[in-house]
Amino acid sequence: MEEIYDIAIIGSGPAGLSAALTAKARNLNVIWFGSKNVSKKVELAEKISNYPGLIEVTGKEMQQTFQKQIEEEGLVITEKVINQIFPMGQQYALFSGQESWMAKTILIAMGMAPNTTMAGEAEYLGKGVSYCATCDGRLYAGKTIAVYCTNPEYEAEIEFLADIAEKVYVYATYPDFGIKRENVTLLKTAPIEVLGDGLVNGVRCKGRRNVESLEAAGEKTLEQSSMQNPALWGDILAVDGIFCLKDSYSPVALIKGLEQEERHIKVNRRQETNIRGCYAAGDCTGRPYQYAKAVGEGNVAVHSIMEYLREIKK
Amino acid sequence: MEEIYDIAIIGSGPAGLSAALTAKARNLNVIWFGSKNVSKKVELAEKISNYPGLIEVTGKEMQQTFQKQIEEEGLVITEKVINQIFPMGQQYALFSGQESWMAKTILIAMGMAPNTTMAGEAEYLGKGVSYCATCDGRLYAGKTIAVYCTNPEYEAEIEFLADIAEKVYVYATYPDFGIKRENVTLLKTAPIEVLGDGLVNGVRCKGRRNVESLEAAGEKTLEQSSMQNPALWGDILAVDGIFCLKDSYSPVALIKGLEQEERHIKVNRRQETNIRGCYAAGDCTGRPYQYAKAVGEGNVAVHSIMEYLREIKK
Repeated sequence: MEEIYDIAIIGSGPAGLSAALTAKARNLNVIWFGSKNVSKKVELAEKISNYPGLIEVTGKEMQQTFQKQIEEEGLVITEKVINQIFPMGQQYALFSGQESWMAKTILIAMGMAPNTTMAGEAEYLGKGVSYCATCDGRLYAGKTIAVYCTNPEYEAEIEFLADIAEKVYVYATYPDFGIKRENVTLLKTAPIEVLGDGLVNGVRCKGRRNVESLEAAGEKTLEQSSMQNPALWGDILAVDGIFCLKDSYSPVALIKGLEQEERHIKVNRRQETNIRGCYAAGDCTGRPYQYAKAVGEGNVAVHSIMEYLREIKK
Repeated sequence: MEEIYDIAIIGSGPAGLSAALTAKARNLNVIWFGSKNVSKKVELAEKISNYPGLIEVTGKEMQQTFQKQIEEEGLVITEKVINQIFPMGQQYALFSGQESWMAKTILIAMGMAPNTTMAGEAEYLGKGVSYCATCDGRLYAGKTIAVYCTNPEYEAEIEFLADIAEKVYVYATYPDFGIKRENVTLLKTAPIEVLGDGLVNGVRCKGRRNVESLEAAGEKTLEQSSMQNPALWGDILAVDGIFCLKDSYSPVALIKGLEQEERHIKVNRRQETNIRGCYAAGDCTGRPYQYAKAVGEGNVAVHSIMEYLREIKK
């Protein structure tokens, strides 16, 4: 039988670290997802002068201190991007592609990722929007798909998709996209909206440059419809599905029904979200975006989780 | 005209420090009350293994790091015990004995002091209960008073009271009480309830040992009434007033009307109390009693205060 963790912590910034340290001090069985770099945001900070205990440090120095602490406390970071979470009674199933884990509670400490969620993305998730090429690729044999890709590491998945689909439009957020194949076209501007009618049937991109160049090349687009409705102004491509291969996913896309408040996860003073057993801490719960706040919330969340674990054990 | 500070921070533990650092980083005009020792609780902690940034430190080491940070950031701690705060429109008057300060906002970060507030103390404050010998001593010329004293430093104030009052009962929380005077009697057990009828007329102590020894010495007590009502069981002394000379005061005694919830100051996620312009952070707002939580709340409080200051400036 699969191991069931007490807590799955998602995110390795200050909130996740604070939670992991506290969970370890309390002998909880933890799986911790994140990056060994701890946090890009921490690394890039210029000067931190208001974090008690670290005197006028650079982000780089704070990062190194955190990494040393993780090592000395024997904490393990699982470097996987979680792209789907399903509640299953009193536990949760977490997925990263086809890998999965079970945990009694979830702590979302993912920070405020630049919001790369498209309009319609959450709505059409599972209806043409997919986060996992390996899982869903075979559904698109002979069809036309779009891919939104944030990391060269995912290009192998795009190769796999190009083997199956007839046509693949790719938008890469980084330069030097590495795939040159007949049926793969690199888009000039980012997809910004998933369109559909129950199931995905198109994707709208920013500006007009894609449609112009694709039509010049004799390809079919849905450009006409957007011209008739100024609200739909932009590039529209006819696609049967879109794969979003990202380094981080919006928490709202990860767990269905997670309540937000002004683009942040809504929590109370105990760091409880509206979903039982699901907690959140750090920047993802709102301003101020501060290390001290994140660290405090990570700690509080674990204390609330311990109470919850005692409760469900009864 | 008196200087009006943007914030008065009361308490120099992790919550107060986090607030002071953030306020300094934001160029706020701050007055910070506390102890140069930072926090007795921090100093006495054995081992801290879950505070991000400080790896397996003793309380003593954390204290030293905090002290070094305070020094390097040029922060100043005013070593005064605030014993009364009055809201005055959009600002507050803070008192320590007869000294006073003005501030636009208050941040209470006093930790969880052992609760030395007696039953009836808050109710009779200003009606026979006083926190300041210098301020109120003269009201008790020729009268009988009790004194609750937590620190030998306050013995000069007791001498002053003994010059004025006819009789002074003193309970000292420390050994080796230093005053030997005809009209000063050291109590064997602590006062636990202030009694009165609109104004203070007595004080009830723990157990029965005071009354027994005082009656043996031929002194007048209110013992009889307590014998008739078991609910009042205990030592009852007839007094006209009681002075509480303490190292810390319950926040509820400091500010009238401050809302509590299970013995803690009630705050929301912005660290706002029920009183406009009055914020609280750290252990005094509730469990978990953790450094990380305190540090987070101190930071959040200052961010909320900055918004409030902008608002009242309009």
